[in-house]
Amino acid sequence: MNEMSNSAGAYQRLTARFARMAVVEEALSMLGWDEAAVMPDGGAAARADQLAMLSGVAHGMLIEPVVADDLAAAEAPAGDAVAARNLALMRRAHRQAVALPGDLVEALARQSSSCEKVWRAARAAADFSMVAGPLGDLLALSREKAQALSAATGLSPYDALIDSYQPGIRAAEISQIFARYERFLQQALPQAEAVQARREQRGPGMAPFAVAAQEALCRKLAAQAGLDFTGARLDRSMHPFCGGTPTDIRITTRYDEADFCSALMGVLHETGHALYEAGLPRAQARQKVGYAAGMAVHESQSLIIEMQAVRSDAFLGYLGPVLAAGFGQDVRDFTPDRLSARLRRVERSFIRVEADEMTYPAHVILRFRLESALIAGDLAVADLPGAWNEGMRDLLGIVPPNDAQGCLQDIHWYAELFGYFPSYTLGAMAAAQLMAAARRAEPGLDAALAQGDFSPLLGWLRTHVHGQGSMFGFNELLQRATGKPLDPADFETHLTARYLS
Amino acid sequence: MNEMSNSAGAYQRLTARFARMAVVEEALSMLGWDEAAVMPDGGAAARADQLAMLSGVAHGMLIEPVVADDLAAAEAPAGDAVAARNLALMRRAHRQAVALPGDLVEALARQSSSCEKVWRAARAAADFSMVAGPLGDLLALSREKAQALSAATGLSPYDALIDSYQPGIRAAEISQIFARYERFLQQALPQAEAVQARREQRGPGMAPFAVAAQEALCRKLAAQAGLDFTGARLDRSMHPFCGGTPTDIRITTRYDEADFCSALMGVLHETGHALYEAGLPRAQARQKVGYAAGMAVHESQSLIIEMQAVRSDAFLGYLGPVLAAGFGQDVRDFTPDRLSARLRRVERSFIRVEADEMTYPAHVILRFRLESALIAGDLAVADLPGAWNEGMRDLLGIVPPNDAQGCLQDIHWYAELFGYFPSYTLGAMAAAQLMAAARRAEPGLDAALAQGDFSPLLGWLRTHVHGQGSMFGFNELLQRATGKPLDPADFETHLTARYLS
Repeated sequence: MNEMSNSAGAYQRLTARFARMAVVEEALSMLGWDEAAVMPDGGAAARADQLAMLSGVAHGMLIEPVVADDLAAAEAPAGDAVAARNLALMRRAHRQAVALPGDLVEALARQSSSCEKVWRAARAAADFSMVAGPLGDLLALSREKAQALSAATGLSPYDALIDSYQPGIRAAEISQIFARYERFLQQALPQAEAVQARREQRGPGMAPFAVAAQEALCRKLAAQAGLDFTGARLDRSMHPFCGGTPTDIRITTRYDEADFCSALMGVLHETGHALYEAGLPRAQARQKVGYAAGMAVHESQSLIIEMQAVRSDAFLGYLGPVLAAGFGQDVRDFTPDRLSARLRRVERSFIRVEADEMTYPAHVILRFRLESALIAGDLAVADLPGAWNEGMRDLLGIVPPNDAQGCLQDIHWYAELFGYFPSYTLGAMAAAQLMAAARRAEPGLDAALAQGDFSPLLGWLRTHVHGQGSMFGFNELLQRATGKPLDPADFETHLTARYLS
Repeated sequence: MNEMSNSAGAYQRLTARFARMAVVEEALSMLGWDEAAVMPDGGAAARADQLAMLSGVAHGMLIEPVVADDLAAAEAPAGDAVAARNLALMRRAHRQAVALPGDLVEALARQSSSCEKVWRAARAAADFSMVAGPLGDLLALSREKAQALSAATGLSPYDALIDSYQPGIRAAEISQIFARYERFLQQALPQAEAVQARREQRGPGMAPFAVAAQEALCRKLAAQAGLDFTGARLDRSMHPFCGGTPTDIRITTRYDEADFCSALMGVLHETGHALYEAGLPRAQARQKVGYAAGMAVHESQSLIIEMQAVRSDAFLGYLGPVLAAGFGQDVRDFTPDRLSARLRRVERSFIRVEADEMTYPAHVILRFRLESALIAGDLAVADLPGAWNEGMRDLLGIVPPNDAQGCLQDIHWYAELFGYFPSYTLGAMAAAQLMAAARRAEPGLDAALAQGDFSPLLGWLRTHVHGQGSMFGFNELLQRATGKPLDPADFETHLTARYLS
């Protein structure tokens, strides 16, 4: 009896502690939004101190010795699967936190910050050699980190990194899925290009598109997709993102008067992220089991809105007249064909963030292969530009004219984000699989989208994804929601239907 | 030698700890701005947790046992007066923090929060009886707090409260100063009304005044007064304020298309606060000695800009054409006389925050007398409405038609801010005294203002007020800057010149 009470008491203490840590992390999230969206330049130095201080407070709460004792003693209430999962996730977070020696964490923070600075200059100069040294040092530290996480988790070093962004999927499986997609792409891409050449080439409407009108449309359509602005804001920032907390979500975008699609699709993408956060289980708020299930699942939720729903045939028919009215332009310039010419255009290109949904995975496959070789020690930093260009030629048949359009384009590696890239494409594939399952479960889903009504889709996502929090890893979540683990066939089917017919 | 090192080491540890606490307080300040200026309603509950959590973190850092040991052992470096003052201020902060038992602090927070909620309803219903009970409970706790601070500081209970907002001035002295002002007012107010009746009655320009034009003018004039927007923002909020940190200042206002003066004067008032924060000594940033010297000194800095400089004869002549151009209206409708009719109008009125600078002190004198009696136990909460109305009749010859325009109008007491009110009028008087000294030291000050140039005034303030941080208490700061402690004569001279001739 006494032991039972002790273990129950330990679990209670842990949930209280993790809730307090979550509150500090909420404060960090709000300050991060502020920095990106509204902070004047003068605040930069003080803000860095504030973020470092609060990160240290949260980290300190996690690594206090009493936590290890409580984690060892704790038992979840009998028969409470949510609590059991929560405890497992608390143990995982603690294991990851204590796996890394303090001086390694500090060295990583310092080197990552200085490497990122050099990278900005190197990218501006399109000169990889400028940053090769700092990246080499950062890679060495990242490999140490991967080794430490590997020792703590029993995963391979690269798997340990992947797992820290998206639990529940391994590099070996990703490798097979990506190899299959590469084969698909070699066939599908030339066909899509041929089909596309016979279609409407003109994009929708006529520039300029007033920023105020764009913003009003973004707000209207985000709300229509289900975003509740009594618990959310839309602002501007250099790089669009979704931040804040589940009851106070902050999404951002940037506007270009020459092209409304970039802001609008960006906002609807972030809206997908926001809907996920807003739909997380309130009963488990501030507990590990109540958080989003990982970065790939998060990306699936942004893409199921942006790519699957908004760019569907059904919704494009609805969208045209709304846009025409919003911009005060001729509705005949916003036909589905004109919208498709801009929103569903396939193109071999150098820059990942500008890529269409068919070629995007090629960019990710390249990065996955290169970073797994870097972490394994099979690729030297000096050989990165060559390997990059060779990979682009193999995958897309094009070679970047310089490193700024090649291996310098993304911040990730220069900011120590090894293991993150696969999430983008796993998310895209999961989005297609979830959409197929949602369509089976909700036969009126497309008819609703054709009326601008996202509620059948959103209702299904709330039950099968959002409301699940972190109960399940990547493949188990998909298994429960769709009847199978990640299956790239649904994504191929989606692309075939949209681009090859 | 060993003891020397210990005491020096203790001082070093303390400065490091207080700097970390300051960083947490910066985060609190930014989150407070966010709540008031941009947070959607949905974020309220989570934000309250975030603020409580970080306040607890900062408080915890201050009351850790090691702090008492270090404060006892510490010695400032020999001959370093700034460090000596800093150490004294750290001891003062610690004394105040440990003086209050934890359960009293908690009870105050709880009762203040619930009393404030009831007050909002009571004010809306203009029914003091609704909130009399909660206010009575809050007063009882506040008196306990005052007793505890009194025991820790050796000051009287009410002085201990005043001292927590503005160090360096006592109730006995304030009482004399206020009695003198009351005598001045009894003579001056009827004269001012008579003079005013013979002057121009029409205000400037013609409504509506577009919000965008108002905002642009606010920004332009704030910048002209010296506010550097690379380290500051101007936003909107229900109640205007100045928040943020010295390198990232956030001022807010609200706009009314029927009347541009309220937003403009509000912004210039907050600009005065902001210039003080921006001008604090950077070398002592995040140390107690580097903070502003108290709420009365802070108010003197907002009022020296808003009341002394902006509403001066010299500046009004400059301001008219700027406003006319900003609103695209006829410059002949923005003469100094027309501006004066709006910006320098004396009126007996019920509401403190709408009062002119001559009658404003009467509102503060009333509150000072009532709250000192409440804290002393000489006035029962039930008798407050009657005492209020009687005081208004004595001071201004008018009686509020209901308690919403009487003792329910201000949030202060219902949010446990006893001892704060005197700061407003001490600040107004100090502003007049500082302005007189600045004019003596900078003979070209008014000629510059007539050109829209604040730099002679700002330069003088930076040296004699802003750059002093918290080196001196209220009267000592004034003594050094103007040659004498607070002397209400300068304020009377100012009012006489502006309103009686």
